[in-house]
Amino acid sequence: MSAWDSLTYFPNWQIMNKKFSTEQLAFSAEGLIPAIAQDALSGEVLMMAWMNKEAVEETLSKGQVCYWSRSRQSLWRKGESSGQTQKLVAFRYDCDADTILLKVEQQGVACHTGRRSCFYNQVDNGEVAELLPIETAPSVLYKKKEK
Amino acid sequence: MSAWDSLTYFPNWQIMNKKFSTEQLAFSAEGLIPAIAQDALSGEVLMMAWMNKEAVEETLSKGQVCYWSRSRQSLWRKGESSGQTQKLVAFRYDCDADTILLKVEQQGVACHTGRRSCFYNQVDNGEVAELLPIETAPSVLYKKKEK
Repeated sequence: MSAWDSLTYFPNWQIMNKKFSTEQLAFSAEGLIPAIAQDALSGEVLMMAWMNKEAVEETLSKGQVCYWSRSRQSLWRKGESSGQTQKLVAFRYDCDADTILLKVEQQGVACHTGRRSCFYNQVDNGEVAELLPIETAPSVLYKKKEK
Repeated sequence: MSAWDSLTYFPNWQIMNKKFSTEQLAFSAEGLIPAIAQDALSGEVLMMAWMNKEAVEETLSKGQVCYWSRSRQSLWRKGESSGQTQKLVAFRYDCDADTILLKVEQQGVACHTGRRSCFYNQVDNGEVAELLPIETAPSVLYKKKEK
């Protein structure tokens, strides 16, 4: 990982001589922290999901993004069933250490609906607009699961 | 609002003939929904905060971003005390309608530490790096409050 991304250069970047551990993150009462995934190349915000301590550690050690699925109550290795994996480019967290920002290389589409990003709904003058088309049908994305 | 931003063009954009109401959003048990603020021009992710129904409605009607402060338990009109306001450029929400993405024009700095973005900590090979310098001292940002 390096101190720039495709959108921004950080001339004042400095190592703080501080080891990172998950103890420094502010997890919720349920042991979770929100993680925003952003396309490292285009800057498009792709999705938001949750991580627990184990998901943070696995993401950092393997370099592939792993969330915590609140509905399944298990680790969610992004792309495990769909093939739409996220390779970690940079791992950041905010001033209060209660939100994570992941810069990722997205394989295929990020959204389970088959769209590039989950944020395809826009409110325009009180009406809903859809910004993004379905690029890959969910039946294709999840064909392995359906067998 | 229009169907493009500085980073992405949406050729397949379409109005869905569906009126928007906050009933369509999936608020948490506490009546809150996370909102990501992204610089409309640079694509930089600036911060993540929470909104309740009233904050969503005010943001859409006034065109200035208003959050819900969990610590103060009150509406948080961003920039009210610091002057660092966020003008709404686009209001989006995700596939599950449980996260909001705001494209904003940020006045000054987004972070209460005086940095452009709240996401200035990066984990690099197990160490913490700081990417962004303090642009405006908090004592200057909050001088009105301190009087």
